[in-house]
Amino acid sequence: MNYRMVIYILGRMLGIEALILQIPMIVSLIYGENCAQDFMLTGAVLLVLFLILGRKVPENTNIYGKDGFVIVAFAWIFWSFFGAIPFCTTGAIPNFIDAFFETVSGFTTTGSTILTDIEVLPKGLLFWRSLTHWIGGMGVLVFVMVLTSLNEKQSMHLMRAEVPGPEADKLLPKAKNNARLLYAMYLALTVLEILFLLAGGMNLYDSITHSFSTAGTGGFSNRNASIGFYDSAYIDGVITVFMILFGVNFNMYFLLLIKEVKSVWKNEEVRAYFMIIAGAIAAITINTYSVYESIGKAFRYSAFQVASIITTTGFGTADFNMWPEFSKAILMTLMIIGACAGSTGGGMKVSRFLILLKSIKKEVKQLLHPKAVSVTRINGKKVGADTLRGVYIYFFAYILILVVSVLIVSLNNFDFSTTFSSVLTTLNNVGPGISLVGPTENFAKFSGLSKLVFCFDMLAGRLEIFPILMVMSPSLWRRRF
Amino acid sequence: MNYRMVIYILGRMLGIEALILQIPMIVSLIYGENCAQDFMLTGAVLLVLFLILGRKVPENTNIYGKDGFVIVAFAWIFWSFFGAIPFCTTGAIPNFIDAFFETVSGFTTTGSTILTDIEVLPKGLLFWRSLTHWIGGMGVLVFVMVLTSLNEKQSMHLMRAEVPGPEADKLLPKAKNNARLLYAMYLALTVLEILFLLAGGMNLYDSITHSFSTAGTGGFSNRNASIGFYDSAYIDGVITVFMILFGVNFNMYFLLLIKEVKSVWKNEEVRAYFMIIAGAIAAITINTYSVYESIGKAFRYSAFQVASIITTTGFGTADFNMWPEFSKAILMTLMIIGACAGSTGGGMKVSRFLILLKSIKKEVKQLLHPKAVSVTRINGKKVGADTLRGVYIYFFAYILILVVSVLIVSLNNFDFSTTFSSVLTTLNNVGPGISLVGPTENFAKFSGLSKLVFCFDMLAGRLEIFPILMVMSPSLWRRRF
Repeated sequence: MNYRMVIYILGRMLGIEALILQIPMIVSLIYGENCAQDFMLTGAVLLVLFLILGRKVPENTNIYGKDGFVIVAFAWIFWSFFGAIPFCTTGAIPNFIDAFFETVSGFTTTGSTILTDIEVLPKGLLFWRSLTHWIGGMGVLVFVMVLTSLNEKQSMHLMRAEVPGPEADKLLPKAKNNARLLYAMYLALTVLEILFLLAGGMNLYDSITHSFSTAGTGGFSNRNASIGFYDSAYIDGVITVFMILFGVNFNMYFLLLIKEVKSVWKNEEVRAYFMIIAGAIAAITINTYSVYESIGKAFRYSAFQVASIITTTGFGTADFNMWPEFSKAILMTLMIIGACAGSTGGGMKVSRFLILLKSIKKEVKQLLHPKAVSVTRINGKKVGADTLRGVYIYFFAYILILVVSVLIVSLNNFDFSTTFSSVLTTLNNVGPGISLVGPTENFAKFSGLSKLVFCFDMLAGRLEIFPILMVMSPSLWRRRF
Repeated sequence: MNYRMVIYILGRMLGIEALILQIPMIVSLIYGENCAQDFMLTGAVLLVLFLILGRKVPENTNIYGKDGFVIVAFAWIFWSFFGAIPFCTTGAIPNFIDAFFETVSGFTTTGSTILTDIEVLPKGLLFWRSLTHWIGGMGVLVFVMVLTSLNEKQSMHLMRAEVPGPEADKLLPKAKNNARLLYAMYLALTVLEILFLLAGGMNLYDSITHSFSTAGTGGFSNRNASIGFYDSAYIDGVITVFMILFGVNFNMYFLLLIKEVKSVWKNEEVRAYFMIIAGAIAAITINTYSVYESIGKAFRYSAFQVASIITTTGFGTADFNMWPEFSKAILMTLMIIGACAGSTGGGMKVSRFLILLKSIKKEVKQLLHPKAVSVTRINGKKVGADTLRGVYIYFFAYILILVVSVLIVSLNNFDFSTTFSSVLTTLNNVGPGISLVGPTENFAKFSGLSKLVFCFDMLAGRLEIFPILMVMSPSLWRRRF
């Protein structure tokens, strides 16, 4: 491991966070809020750290595969740690664990909150809260890569460790330029959503924060009632569409830009993604008809909630805690499946789900016809043995973290649906769960230990488990080589 | 597929069931109960079927790998179907789906019941109920193999399809003699338990039925309050010990018989099994101390329940629905892990769990040191790539069945803990769950559709998923070859 280079990059990343913090600082100044000075002070601390750690380029600038994982894991932890400071020093969230939870929830684009009353917070802080989603959505590191100057080989290792999805479908832009293009598309879609929301009568501040949260598939709102506050079919519709769009593999937009429409149309993951969405909306619309007594209303709320949950955004327009159990079970299943690989969404990813389904089918076929040779294909391409193994082990590690987290969180002695869904929603970076963590509830009620478990789950979910498991592995720290 | 041979063997199996049904018939006669004639009539029907299908040996007596799975799947379904008839015709369980559920629950050694009052049933029927556990425990087919005359190669295919556990640790007795030896040990342990229970003052009838249920890790009791009825620390202790013993890989007893004590001591699965049991008992004892206010009592009830759940027996002495959530979460985790491979217990099996844990460890190591070559070992032996893949795919298929079942059962609109734990307990062949399927509750409240889903889950759990998935695969029925 190249310790000097790891520290150097982490130092630079802290410098970048110092810069980013000046955006909410300006927002605070515009609204004449005191929290401007908290952003400035935190920025100053980060600047000092940057000057100490991130100014002198080490002689050996190589990054090894392992370093990528370590940098990514610590980058997310440090950014969350320092990003939590303004919440704490302003007194908005006096307890640091709570502030850390809120920031991890922001950067990992989860959107779970410990706040009981959101609207009392200064506008600068709420802006920062939504901005963490936007930055976290595309990946803290991709963001940094665009702004700093790593060479192609170095950035590959970082991208591999950070961009979601199984290897086969990972977004692997070969150069910084591609990363810039991705960010440009991300920015363009965000601006488009802001314009659509403004057209619906939402004010500029709310439009920007909600578009940031949609783009990152995060879910933080500056309203206590989330999107339900606006009670507008138009706004529900706009956000539903944009949530679904941000859950699509960004490679598809790239393909559309270069007019490869056919490849998009034939992409199995995208097809499955839209089919699951359509099926879930239909099932929940029928199931909640008894609640709303109007097909139109049932459809509007179902579509919004399905889009919000499968993309792991977590916005709410309806209290789905009141829905029948079948609808709730569908939503929990969507949490696990998640969005497309290479999107800003969380969860297991549709492509992993497809690979696992195909593996079962293949296994049954092979048991029936032992001599037949069959391979697992996605989009007509063979899925390699290493990728398959990676997906299988990822899946077990995922379930293992789920079970262990449920065990620890159950010490709070809340009912099983609260315990189970709180872990499910954080591990999949969704936001709300059911029962006591339902859409109208929050995470303040849990113990400090549970909140730290949730932080771990959110980070493990966002970084797809292995970087976080690696920094916890004793074998990483044992030898220096 | 050799259809004639498949039908021939299934025919013989029905003949065997005709014989077995005469055991509860005799019990009914002893107690002068009318249900004797129901057993006789069902036996007569089976005898006719046997005479039609199972008398003439086909010319081609080869059994192919695929045939083994088909025979096993249908053997369990048919035995359950015909075994359900006496419950129905006596009027004890008038609804046939309920009777089928009860019999599947018996043969699969699950022990979930739809009965609201067990003690009103005739003694003959209750004896039959426990006997299904005993026969199901060692596998309907191993039982048949002992009694009929298949050659070595034929029986291998059947054993492979039926005996639980990943390939590496499967009990694969090479000859009928070994199967006989296994049954002899099984019988010996059962008789030993009967003697111990008699010594504790339990009457002969209760001792036999409860020993049958313990041996098969089933859980049916002829008492409404299960083992809690006797309220005796001695009886609790005896059954705790025997439950744990029946959850051990039977190969270990074979090794003990041939004085290979060292191999038993070094067996990783057995060690892990006992360590998990000890850990769970300790955690639950501490956690339930607040309920019982006595370490002794807390230990007695914890030990019993841990043994009952990890071996997937499902007997109860305490209403663990009243325990803190942490204890309930531990019990649900034990349900998933299950007993040792090659035992009569259900669940995922400790050895599969170990293989999956080691795979994660190996993956993390490989990411850290890409050039290092590492292999997964169990008991010092390398686990082959095919076995690994089998375990991975088994695990995903298991979770997939769990999720789909939860979705369907949630249509009943019971709370999430009921829905989730009812599927968990049937899929792992345990018996009771939590909330509305807790130890003092039953499964009568579910819809017919849900009960059929539970039957599917119990069979899939007992046969380790693939035989049941195979008979549902269109590709099995498409071509005759």
